[in-house]
Amino acid sequence: MKVSELGEFGLIERLARMVDQAQKGPAISGRQIIIGIGDDAAAWQGDAADQLATVDGFIQDVHFTLNGISWRELGWKALAANLSDIAAMGGTAQYALIALALPNDTEVDDVTELYQGIIELANEYRVAIAGGDMSTAPLVAINITVIGRAPGQGKILTRRAAQPGDRIAVTGYLGTAAAGLEMLTKKLQFDPEAEATFRKAFLHPQPRIAEGQLLVKHGVKTAIDISDGLISDLNHILRASQAGARLEVDRIPIHPAVKANFGNKAIELALSGGEDYELLFTGSAEIINRVTAQAACPVTVIGEIEPGQVGKIGLVGKDGRPYQPGKAGWQHFVTE
Amino acid sequence: MKVSELGEFGLIERLARMVDQAQKGPAISGRQIIIGIGDDAAAWQGDAADQLATVDGFIQDVHFTLNGISWRELGWKALAANLSDIAAMGGTAQYALIALALPNDTEVDDVTELYQGIIELANEYRVAIAGGDMSTAPLVAINITVIGRAPGQGKILTRRAAQPGDRIAVTGYLGTAAAGLEMLTKKLQFDPEAEATFRKAFLHPQPRIAEGQLLVKHGVKTAIDISDGLISDLNHILRASQAGARLEVDRIPIHPAVKANFGNKAIELALSGGEDYELLFTGSAEIINRVTAQAACPVTVIGEIEPGQVGKIGLVGKDGRPYQPGKAGWQHFVTE
Repeated sequence: MKVSELGEFGLIERLARMVDQAQKGPAISGRQIIIGIGDDAAAWQGDAADQLATVDGFIQDVHFTLNGISWRELGWKALAANLSDIAAMGGTAQYALIALALPNDTEVDDVTELYQGIIELANEYRVAIAGGDMSTAPLVAINITVIGRAPGQGKILTRRAAQPGDRIAVTGYLGTAAAGLEMLTKKLQFDPEAEATFRKAFLHPQPRIAEGQLLVKHGVKTAIDISDGLISDLNHILRASQAGARLEVDRIPIHPAVKANFGNKAIELALSGGEDYELLFTGSAEIINRVTAQAACPVTVIGEIEPGQVGKIGLVGKDGRPYQPGKAGWQHFVTE
Repeated sequence: MKVSELGEFGLIERLARMVDQAQKGPAISGRQIIIGIGDDAAAWQGDAADQLATVDGFIQDVHFTLNGISWRELGWKALAANLSDIAAMGGTAQYALIALALPNDTEVDDVTELYQGIIELANEYRVAIAGGDMSTAPLVAINITVIGRAPGQGKILTRRAAQPGDRIAVTGYLGTAAAGLEMLTKKLQFDPEAEATFRKAFLHPQPRIAEGQLLVKHGVKTAIDISDGLISDLNHILRASQAGARLEVDRIPIHPAVKANFGNKAIELALSGGEDYELLFTGSAEIINRVTAQAACPVTVIGEIEPGQVGKIGLVGKDGRPYQPGKAGWQHFVTE
C-alpha cells in the first residue's frame, strides 16, 4: 500500500501504535510521556514543570510557494504554525530550533529576510532561537521545532477530552486565511482594506498563545488549532474523544470582508479552509461563557459535542434542519 | 550573493550574529541560553538540570540515496546523527520528534521499516519518540529533533574551550564510514568481513553517548562529533576556540580493513571522510590518559592544539616534517 492510499492521518495512527507497542515499559524507563504522537504537541514530565515540544515541516510547493509571499512573511508564518501548536496545548513557547534546507542558488539576503520574519515573531513571544541545522536541497524546506512549558499538572489542552454536551467554540474568524490563499493564487483584486485583511490572515497569522492560556485558566480541557480546516480539525477532536458533533453553520464566524467578497463561497472557506490558526475548543456552557467574557478576541459557540457515531459532524442550518450546501454535498462528514 | 558562494558555515555564522543581536537582553528575557547557534547542540538552563536540543535534516539525494541502504538502516542512521550531537555535548538523550516528508507513492511498509530502525536505536538509549510531523513532498526528508539533559553545570562539552597545549584525541577509527560509502557508490567488492565492517560503519553507526559522558567525568571541556570529516570538524573546534593545530598523520587510527583494502587512499578517507560519528576532543595529557584508561573503545592521541593562525591545521609525518600527501596537496588547511 502507498502512503497516499493510507492517508497522512492513517499513517500517523499506525506509526503511533508501533511506537506505543515498542516503547512500553522498560524500553524508555525514566521518560514520562504525558502526550505522545497524535496531538498538537508532545508533552512530558519535566523536572519542575511539564514540557511541550512540537515540530512542523514547511515545504516549498507543498505548504507554500515563493510567489506572492515574501521571505520575511514565510519566516513569520513557519514559526507561527509552531507557536499555534503550543497555544493549542495551553502552553508557553520558550525555545526554537530552525532546520533549513535551501537550494544552492538561494540569495543570502532572502535567507536573512526569512530569519528576520522568524525573529520578529519569536521576540513577540520571548522565544529564544537556540540552534538549528542547515543543508542544501533541491527545494526550500523549513522545519521548526519549538519547545515550551506546559500549563500546570493535568491542565494541558488535548484533543481527547471532549464530552457529549460540551459546547464547541472558536476564537476569531474562520476562512480568512483561505480567502488570502484564493486571492494570491487566483490573483483576485479587492478593495485595499479587504486585501490587507486577507493577506494578513494568510501570511501573518497571530498565534493564539494568550487565548490558549486563558482557556486553561477557565477549565477548558479540549482544544486544537485550526491548521487543516474547521471540519478536519474538529474531526481530529471527535476521533480522539470518541464522539460526534453538531455544527450550526450560520453561527460560524466569518469576517465581513470574506462574506462581502466571496458570497456563497465564504462558508466553504470557513468550513474547510485551513491555516487560520484560530483555536477550536470545547467545554461546558458556563466555562465557555467565562472565556468569552475575558478573551480579547471574539469567541463564538458554533455547535455541540454529541454522543453517537464517532467522527460524524452534522451540519445544521438556522432552522435546525440539515444544512444543504448545494453541490458540494456537505451534510455530514464521517471518517472510518 | 548566493548561499553556495557564502557557504554553509558562513551562512550559519551570519545568522547566528543576527539572532544574537536581535535577541539580546529583554527580547527573550527569562530564556537562559547557555550554548546557542553553532555547536553540536543547543543548551539552556532548565528547572533542575540544563537541557540540550539538536535537530538534523536528512534529505534524499543530499544526505542519502535510497540505493544500497534499507529503510531500516536509514531510520537508524538518521537518529544516530542526532544522538551523536548529544554525545558531543556529554549529555543524555531523552526525547525525539520525527518530522517526515514523503512522496505520495512511498510504500507504507517502507515507512514502518524506517520507524523500526529509529525505534531500535531509540530503545537502546531510552529515547522516547514523543511526536513529530508528517507531510507529502517530492523527495524523502527526515528531520529529527532530540532533546536531552546536559551534564552538570559548567560541564557541557563545547567546541570553544580548546587551549594551546591540549592533546587532540579521537575515539574509534576514522574513515571506515567513508570506505562504506565508496563501497556502495562504486559497487566495490571486498571479503565478507571487510564488507560488513564498512557497511556497519556507514549505515549502522553507534553514537558515542557513553564516551561523551566519560569525557565529562574526566574533565574534558572540548568535543565535537565527526560528521563532516576530521579536518572539517577539527576546523570547527579551532575556529570556535581561536587556535591552530598540529595533526600527526601516522597516528590517525584507521581500521585494518580500510588500510588493507584502500591503500594510499585510506588516509584521505580518514582525514576528510565524514559520518564516522566518532568523538574528536581535546584536553591535557593527563586527562586524555585517564579517558584512554577507562574508555571501552580505542582512544588515540593524534595531535596538539597550537597557538598561531586560527584554523590552521599543520599535518606532520612520522619524522615531524610536513606531511606530503601527494597530489591532494594537504599541507595545511586555512580558512578565512
